[in-house]
Amino acid sequence: MSILTHLIPNIKHISICANGLFPTNTEVIARLKNGSPIIACDGALNAMSKHGIVADFAIGDGDSLDRDKLKDFIKNPYIQIDDQNTNDLTKAINFIAENYGCNQSILIFAATGLREDHTLGNIALLEQYSTQFKQIAMLSDFGILEALPAGTHRLNSVIGQQISFFCFNQKTEISCEELKWPLVNKNFLALNHGTLNQATAAHINLESNGSVIVFRAFEVKY
Amino acid sequence: MSILTHLIPNIKHISICANGLFPTNTEVIARLKNGSPIIACDGALNAMSKHGIVADFAIGDGDSLDRDKLKDFIKNPYIQIDDQNTNDLTKAINFIAENYGCNQSILIFAATGLREDHTLGNIALLEQYSTQFKQIAMLSDFGILEALPAGTHRLNSVIGQQISFFCFNQKTEISCEELKWPLVNKNFLALNHGTLNQATAAHINLESNGSVIVFRAFEVKY
Repeated sequence: MSILTHLIPNIKHISICANGLFPTNTEVIARLKNGSPIIACDGALNAMSKHGIVADFAIGDGDSLDRDKLKDFIKNPYIQIDDQNTNDLTKAINFIAENYGCNQSILIFAATGLREDHTLGNIALLEQYSTQFKQIAMLSDFGILEALPAGTHRLNSVIGQQISFFCFNQKTEISCEELKWPLVNKNFLALNHGTLNQATAAHINLESNGSVIVFRAFEVKY
Repeated sequence: MSILTHLIPNIKHISICANGLFPTNTEVIARLKNGSPIIACDGALNAMSKHGIVADFAIGDGDSLDRDKLKDFIKNPYIQIDDQNTNDLTKAINFIAENYGCNQSILIFAATGLREDHTLGNIALLEQYSTQFKQIAMLSDFGILEALPAGTHRLNSVIGQQISFFCFNQKTEISCEELKWPLVNKNFLALNHGTLNQATAAHINLESNGSVIVFRAFEVKY
């Protein structure tokens, strides 16, 4: 079994492709292709078309897209939403909530890696959606960023794997034992204080009283 | 004058090269090369050597480096610091404070763009150093992320340029008029709430009562 399949089992999910760095890892791309439906954020269609991926829906303000050129890569008419108060990722997420409900697993691709403000903004959004859907995570060439709501969670890991925890609310306390530096009711006073821990088991049990973003790297150090 | 030179004048600075996505923009690379001194975070030497850049110092825990292969690309002996509580960027910053003092302009390269946990951690660190040095900023192919302490700041901009503000402390209030969506004593309740504003003048005047990270994109939309 590949590390990706171990970390995040290949269950039915909805794929969203944003307009950041398109993955090169073939297994990550395959996971994008397996989404049902596949939703493209606006200009993401450009990158998807180069990989022969056809989106079920494309959503956005239409400002980064040559629609004529890309019409063969969208199954349904383009959904234009001009609201400038929300970005294209938010528009895609809202579309899912309205049309598919919230009992969904959502995987988001190409949401990071290019412009730093898009990366930070998208990760901040991910945290805000943690309580809304059954599962919501970003996949990149580098690992899995997963938004977890308050509660207890069991996540698969690999011994030696670097794991980072991000709490946007500094009051959030998390506990997790299966780590090189175990956490006990720990709150992080800065966003970097929970980074670069390391798993000591094939799964970790995480408990928190608030939303947490967990990053599990594909890179494993022994 | 190029947009980079307009946004951030080419004054004497110290360059730090981290181990993230190495820039491809030749002007950004030239700015890295112009640093005095140039400090490499550990494995950053690999990417620098491919561009023929010789570091004055290389600092880190030595775990991502083939020193024999790279000895022609460091002027001074490698500075190994095994402290696992700080990452290589922190080690480089501390080295500058100790050896050059804090009245310095520091430009950091390749600090974002690959692993999301490194990106987030490095940007969080940038904010923490905002009050320590005369100037501290990250340059990438996509723009300038600059850490500003509480107070008033005049930053160069381009009309139509996308500008994003990030406050890690939600109580921080910022004001800035020269924007498509002007800010008046505004505090952002989430990290994405200050993103994707747009400059309406060739400079912006920013006032805040806490540290702010400002991102000025090279991409300009009209």
